[in-house]
Amino acid sequence: MSVYTPVSEAELAGWLRNYSVGKLLACEPIKAGIENTNYFVTTAQGRYVLTLFERLPAGELPFYLDLMAHLARHAIPCPAPIADLSDQYLGHLNGKPAALVTRLPGHSVESPGAAHCEELGALLARLHLAGRSYSAYLENPRGPKWWRLAAREVMGFLKKPQQQLLEKELAVHAEHRFPDLPRGPVHADLFRDNALFEHGRISGVIDFYFAGVDCWLYDLAVCANDWCLRKDCVLEEERVGALLSSYHGLRPFTPLEREAWPVMLRAAALRFWLSRLHDFHLPRPGMLVHAHDPEHFRSILESRIAVSAPWIA
Amino acid sequence: MSVYTPVSEAELAGWLRNYSVGKLLACEPIKAGIENTNYFVTTAQGRYVLTLFERLPAGELPFYLDLMAHLARHAIPCPAPIADLSDQYLGHLNGKPAALVTRLPGHSVESPGAAHCEELGALLARLHLAGRSYSAYLENPRGPKWWRLAAREVMGFLKKPQQQLLEKELAVHAEHRFPDLPRGPVHADLFRDNALFEHGRISGVIDFYFAGVDCWLYDLAVCANDWCLRKDCVLEEERVGALLSSYHGLRPFTPLEREAWPVMLRAAALRFWLSRLHDFHLPRPGMLVHAHDPEHFRSILESRIAVSAPWIA
Repeated sequence: MSVYTPVSEAELAGWLRNYSVGKLLACEPIKAGIENTNYFVTTAQGRYVLTLFERLPAGELPFYLDLMAHLARHAIPCPAPIADLSDQYLGHLNGKPAALVTRLPGHSVESPGAAHCEELGALLARLHLAGRSYSAYLENPRGPKWWRLAAREVMGFLKKPQQQLLEKELAVHAEHRFPDLPRGPVHADLFRDNALFEHGRISGVIDFYFAGVDCWLYDLAVCANDWCLRKDCVLEEERVGALLSSYHGLRPFTPLEREAWPVMLRAAALRFWLSRLHDFHLPRPGMLVHAHDPEHFRSILESRIAVSAPWIA
Repeated sequence: MSVYTPVSEAELAGWLRNYSVGKLLACEPIKAGIENTNYFVTTAQGRYVLTLFERLPAGELPFYLDLMAHLARHAIPCPAPIADLSDQYLGHLNGKPAALVTRLPGHSVESPGAAHCEELGALLARLHLAGRSYSAYLENPRGPKWWRLAAREVMGFLKKPQQQLLEKELAVHAEHRFPDLPRGPVHADLFRDNALFEHGRISGVIDFYFAGVDCWLYDLAVCANDWCLRKDCVLEEERVGALLSSYHGLRPFTPLEREAWPVMLRAAALRFWLSRLHDFHLPRPGMLVHAHDPEHFRSILESRIAVSAPWIA
């Protein structure tokens, strides 16, 4: 369970007096998530999520909160930050930067089908288009600069073949940069557990705390590597086709994006292989949850290298 | 029915391409309301209200839309304007300024009891507190300046006793100004049909197009004159008590407000008597709906003059 900073009901009720959300009715720690302390909060007005930020530099938090606020007022179903009586999204609670956001309905889907991927593609296109008018800038914090840093730190823990794979991949990506692909704010972590469904529609996209500015296509690659996977880690054509086609219907791909797709899938696999290796071999002090197995993303990466990537049918 | 400016499905679908709300599924004209053209709009994302502004000066619209956006992000259940792809709340459709806002659930209550008034008081207090950090300014457009203007225009249509009543009231209010009462943005038109209830809770406060900056107590007086009325137009103590007590619990009244209450109730009655007289005798060209009977608010005004006003029990 990931409650790094406990908050009592009395502390929360006191803190909420600085908001106009009505009386506190209930609060309950959220067990999922390894980065922050989260509570479900119910007030006389509605349902919210309280987050105490444990990892992110305070200077970056406005980028995330303002991005969610921006997307929410463009009708993207993402958590909307609640402003306090001083009109601020970011507060402090028990010594940590803290924010209250709306709690969205729905549940994540463990085994998505083509229809779910079609929903996801449309949502991503709308999110990218709405994000174009967002003016703040934060480079994708898990982009190529971070890959090289993380690779240096984990290299010593790896066996020879893995070291070779990692070095080869870094070299490939050093030669494949895509300065001409359309860019903007991306979620960059839209795994199945960060999308909520209700009645077959996406009712929520959550956890924007890895967002940044990067190629839009990168978001699709992250999704494909999680949503469209067969048991053997090969991409399933039908689901990838559904994801990409519905996206394309709202925000048409450029020819360069078609070309970049196979390398982008490898980049997205590399990023998560690296972060899982890092969490596994170099866990942050006090980290309460066991790291995901890095091997899963090594298999995905190897599959992306070996098997040609499906595109729109 | 109040559709001054028709909008076809094709026109709307085209216009919505400038938003990230998903595909248009349905639209339906709204019959209530006499000021603007309104449609219920359903898209793949959710339910919205489209308003084409027929009356308000374009320069004032940002005050209203930004106020709703401000309150919505403070968790006040009011319509949240949706920004378009250029990040603007205010657009143009069929030659009119137009905006899309979220559609709130619930239904208005025709015969409110003390519990409804208690809900309303708490909501108003939260709304006033959240509005303190709203920095734009628009004087209450139906304040004392407008009373004198409107009185001059309708005077000739009135019989002698009504003329005397009107003149007396204007004189009373000219001598009772309240520069020291707490002020801020007020809804100023929160009649029963502008509040939606669901499961006994207020799920929406709508129609902010008479809002402005004025005494907070004025909002309570407008509400009391509509929500707490007996058949004979006298205020019912129990409902007034519930309204004021629950408000007071969140935003305590000052002694000056206690003193000002009886005159404020008369001011709120005068304002609606005048606007109904004006709509009745001098309807705007093309006005599609019959004006409310002005006599109802004359009775309320006379009752406020004759009967002492209940306060918190």
